Amino acid sequence: MIDDLIKRMLRGDRRATARLISLVENDEEKAVEIVKKIYTHTGNAYTIGITGPPGAGKSTLLDKLIKVAREEGKVVGVIAIDPTSPFTGGALLGDRIRMQRHSTDPGVFIRSMATRGSLGGLAKATNDAIKVLDAYGCDLIFVETVGVGQVEVDVVKSADTVVLVTVPGLGDDIQAIKAGLMEISDIFVINKSDKEGADATYFELNMMLDLEKERWEKRGWRPPIVKSVATTMRGIRELWNAINEHRSFLEESGEIQRKRTMRAEEEVKTIISSRIARVISKRLDEEEVSILIDKIVGREMDPYSAADLILEKTLGVKV
Amino acid sequence: MIDDLIKRMLRGDRRATARLISLVENDEEKAVEIVKKIYTHTGNAYTIGITGPPGAGKSTLLDKLIKVAREEGKVVGVIAIDPTSPFTGGALLGDRIRMQRHSTDPGVFIRSMATRGSLGGLAKATNDAIKVLDAYGCDLIFVETVGVGQVEVDVVKSADTVVLVTVPGLGDDIQAIKAGLMEISDIFVINKSDKEGADATYFELNMMLDLEKERWEKRGWRPPIVKSVATTMRGIRELWNAINEHRSFLEESGEIQRKRTMRAEEEVKTIISSRIARVISKRLDEEEVSILIDKIVGREMDPYSAADLILEKTLGVKV
Repeated sequence: MIDDLIKRMLRGDRRATARLISLVENDEEKAVEIVKKIYTHTGNAYTIGITGPPGAGKSTLLDKLIKVAREEGKVVGVIAIDPTSPFTGGALLGDRIRMQRHSTDPGVFIRSMATRGSLGGLAKATNDAIKVLDAYGCDLIFVETVGVGQVEVDVVKSADTVVLVTVPGLGDDIQAIKAGLMEISDIFVINKSDKEGADATYFELNMMLDLEKERWEKRGWRPPIVKSVATTMRGIRELWNAINEHRSFLEESGEIQRKRTMRAEEEVKTIISSRIARVISKRLDEEEVSILIDKIVGREMDPYSAADLILEKTLGVKV
Repeated sequence: MIDDLIKRMLRGDRRATARLISLVENDEEKAVEIVKKIYTHTGNAYTIGITGPPGAGKSTLLDKLIKVAREEGKVVGVIAIDPTSPFTGGALLGDRIRMQRHSTDPGVFIRSMATRGSLGGLAKATNDAIKVLDAYGCDLIFVETVGVGQVEVDVVKSADTVVLVTVPGLGDDIQAIKAGLMEISDIFVINKSDKEGADATYFELNMMLDLEKERWEKRGWRPPIVKSVATTMRGIRELWNAINEHRSFLEESGEIQRKRTMRAEEEVKTIISSRIARVISKRLDEEEVSILIDKIVGREMDPYSAADLILEKTLGVKV
């Protein structure tokens, strides 16, 4: 079945592609099989992460970027990371409404991904979905996150170009979050820049960049700051140019190779964690575990000793 | 050294307590030793998670809750999860400024925790810091998150009572994030409820709760909705009462035992992941790994096959 789906995907079949993404997202065994089989067909897509605090207008911005990319004939993939219900495990927003108008364009493939599980589940699923879209033939793959937590940062920082979208006049909390994201960003966008405070935000970002001067000089790339009003297309072409300039910089400096090496390392680490969790849970005796847990709750045994016991029993590993 | 620090902490020494938290946060080996040694002294503290989107006024609200708790003579611990710089690994906000006035009160212990690492690092550090504060003698431990990602949800959902703080008039993105947090929340707070839209937000939350009626009825607890204006203390006592009512509910229904069992399970899982990552990295031959990574980047080997190879080499595990 998988061989057939892959064959159809490589011929450009969208339904087969969608099905493969669902499989890599939901079924670990099948994910392994699929990635192994399509891997030689990957490596052509350029990935762009779009991140920033909630309400910054990322979806609208992305909608316009897709438009520009399509005008240049690029085949575009979008992976939109949705905040998830920890109970139902389902994505909340479905495929983003604002981007829906592209969904009938055969050159655009939009996919939502739910943020389920913290132990690398999302990062792994996203990486695998990127591979499917890459093998399918996407030239550009956008990864958009809504969240601002560590998992989302992990997802987006593995992109070739990271775009941080902010808006004028955010509170202290958001400033702090932005600062956390600043260091992984290659391009800054001040969206809704027709609102009050846009100049102040520009000034502030610029100052933060000045303070980090040494780092940018060493890297050879100072992140440009683009002002935009996504709803009216203002600044979108500048952003598009900035993305292309960053891409040229990465390719000419050889930096892209270093980035992709780092990404492969991260990916292998993530896979290892998830594989090992699987092996352990297969080998565990549920009753034994529940006795251990009761002991922990009753303060007869601490959780570290219980973990060590489980590791020894299931893997024969002495920590 | 650790024995001495623990002895001092158990006698109420704050500096020793602070030092122990730093150790469990930064040094895995010492974290194991400390938790093993203090574990029998834990199990007395009640934990309260405070979460919600950035800008909702959580720190101010918490500041006022501390005030009320202190009036009742409770010893209070606070763990504030800060968004982190993924590069420097440092926390950005330090101990929250708004809570600083409590820092000279010997009955309040405030601690910031950085969101570093995605593979359970934060959840583990937070759990261990809670144990230290518990053994130190805190009656109540508040865990406050600024982020809204999966890691933050994981951290806060292990609290005995989870309080979700929201504000009137947030955009769609935030609505979605709230929805993700709603299911793990025991009490809702509409802070800044003197602002326009508070009634609409109340109505909306109430409707969401009505839709989830079956679940709440099964659990036996319908989350109350408290309107507050933290800056003027409005609603703070109601919130305090709601927290105490939820606590009574948990204790009388036996639900608290179930919650703590789940938490212990989660904790053991988290510890296992981090222990195994450590073992693997100790046993890895760096040169071999770098050859594998180069092969992945060059599309000669897929990341799953590389992960399997590493698992077999380091742990003798066949997946």
